[in-house]
Amino acid sequence: MKIYAYGIRDDEKPSLKEWETAHPEVEVAFTQELLTPETAKNAAGADGVVVYQQLPYTRETLQALADQGIHQMSLRNVGIDNIDLKAAKELGFKISNVAAYSPNAIAEHAAIQLARILRRSKELDAKVAKRDLRWAPTIGREVRMQTVGVVGTGRIGRVLIQILQGFGAKIVAYDIFKNPDIDKQGLYVDSLDELYAKSDVISLHVPSVKENIHMINKDSIAKMKDGVVLVNVARGDLVDTDAVVAALDSGKVSGMVMDVYENEIGIFNEDWEGKKFPDARLDDLIDRPNVLVTPHTAFYTTKAVLEMVHQSFDAAVAIANGQETRNLVKF
Amino acid sequence: MKIYAYGIRDDEKPSLKEWETAHPEVEVAFTQELLTPETAKNAAGADGVVVYQQLPYTRETLQALADQGIHQMSLRNVGIDNIDLKAAKELGFKISNVAAYSPNAIAEHAAIQLARILRRSKELDAKVAKRDLRWAPTIGREVRMQTVGVVGTGRIGRVLIQILQGFGAKIVAYDIFKNPDIDKQGLYVDSLDELYAKSDVISLHVPSVKENIHMINKDSIAKMKDGVVLVNVARGDLVDTDAVVAALDSGKVSGMVMDVYENEIGIFNEDWEGKKFPDARLDDLIDRPNVLVTPHTAFYTTKAVLEMVHQSFDAAVAIANGQETRNLVKF
Repeated sequence: MKIYAYGIRDDEKPSLKEWETAHPEVEVAFTQELLTPETAKNAAGADGVVVYQQLPYTRETLQALADQGIHQMSLRNVGIDNIDLKAAKELGFKISNVAAYSPNAIAEHAAIQLARILRRSKELDAKVAKRDLRWAPTIGREVRMQTVGVVGTGRIGRVLIQILQGFGAKIVAYDIFKNPDIDKQGLYVDSLDELYAKSDVISLHVPSVKENIHMINKDSIAKMKDGVVLVNVARGDLVDTDAVVAALDSGKVSGMVMDVYENEIGIFNEDWEGKKFPDARLDDLIDRPNVLVTPHTAFYTTKAVLEMVHQSFDAAVAIANGQETRNLVKF
Repeated sequence: MKIYAYGIRDDEKPSLKEWETAHPEVEVAFTQELLTPETAKNAAGADGVVVYQQLPYTRETLQALADQGIHQMSLRNVGIDNIDLKAAKELGFKISNVAAYSPNAIAEHAAIQLARILRRSKELDAKVAKRDLRWAPTIGREVRMQTVGVVGTGRIGRVLIQILQGFGAKIVAYDIFKNPDIDKQGLYVDSLDELYAKSDVISLHVPSVKENIHMINKDSIAKMKDGVVLVNVARGDLVDTDAVVAALDSGKVSGMVMDVYENEIGIFNEDWEGKKFPDARLDDLIDRPNVLVTPHTAFYTTKAVLEMVHQSFDAAVAIANGQETRNLVKF
């Protein structure tokens, strides 16, 4: 059995090494290069490939794999929107992904960053950096004194609730699919409007389906408390950024955590130092003292990367052996 | 009844206003000035004074108050080491302090900052600030994957344990006075050495009594795990800073949270921007990517300030009325 992996980063190598050691029966080869019609040739002789979503996987790419006798692809990530699924079907591909690598990575990031907004951490860090060591007037708020509205109680939202309860915060939650445990705790409110009205902090943990696009907009913000803190570590297009900018300007929104941005593709995960920054609105947001921007790194922990590597290799082997895997994508 | 308050900061005014409104029977006057032998005269006619520790309260200062017929002083803070207690006794003073204003303020700060060290937040923030939006190689660690050693299980240590348990971290605790609740949870280890050996993160929540001075030193660090993260939001002199600097240099200590510093007096709560910074060692620590320095601001939240103001005024009134107050200092 041989598995060939593309786009392996340095931070993935320890997890890859660990998996190899635990699976001496599997021959592992890998490259830093991404999977393209050209690099597909390097997988010759492999039973399956392990990849990480960055480039589109076109019919041409898939055909190039099929030409080597490879009809399976195991993603180390969750998203499959860059795969030509019609071609994959016609070429008889089996595809796996890693849907749940670490809800904690994302939930912890949301909790830490929202606590930082409350503590005015960016302002205080900037003062210390320039050796202004006066504490006033940079006074903080405590997490435990806040009512936090958690929108979406899937895996990530539920972990966030647990973390915030440890802080002693009051939680209100909303989801169209009620989780029995959250329900039993009596945390659900009946409507988003009720959540907006009650929350000092609002954190989004819902998918970017049609009904949710721009759910944070001028109208919904108007229903929120003055000085609300917004947290988006989910999907950029849940938020109408122009509406939030206006609300930051007016003070209606007192702070914003953004690990995602509606126009992030082609901007995040690039180095713009010394170059012309391509998005004036994001440029402005990054510099605001009450906005914490991270470039879609909430997921990026050693534990998450380990899960992405191990689960994808496990799935590749299972598919090659004709076994079941919970990570198989239905398409 | 009249109470006169010294050193009132802008951030205290909302809490002061709130207390005044709730106590129409008490006449409140205040100044931004600190209490000195000269300003003591301004309290003429008051039943008691409310103060915040910044200057020494000398015999001369206390005598100046006594000359106005004032024999009570209510601190808005906890520390009484700047009071000439012998003079206070001879002059018949009653003194109150605020011993527990918000353990959560300090525990939350410790939790947030240690999580930031694990997530390499300072490095990532610096990258984003210069528009380097690549996430690799700035990979983080999750709080839930850590064993956190909590040294001292008083009010603050216990709140920190609760917060970290919300994250899902494993806790080991040590204290010479065992708390029944922490004991029942089975969190105590038998010795500091055992705590040092088991912990990925070590957070100090003990007083600066003789036995604890420089408890974090070359020898104790040698007993810790490689890559340990140290957190000191308690007292600066618990840590031998030179030993920590050496361990940061060698990589033995992978990160440090410091809200206190052994030589902080005269340095913290001052503005050094554009001036010669007085402490080269601290200057270097502030600039390190894996050290988070805050100038003794862990306590500094709206809730803590409210408690400091309300409890000190309550105590001042109680003493003036000859009533009991739990905040009376025995000396």
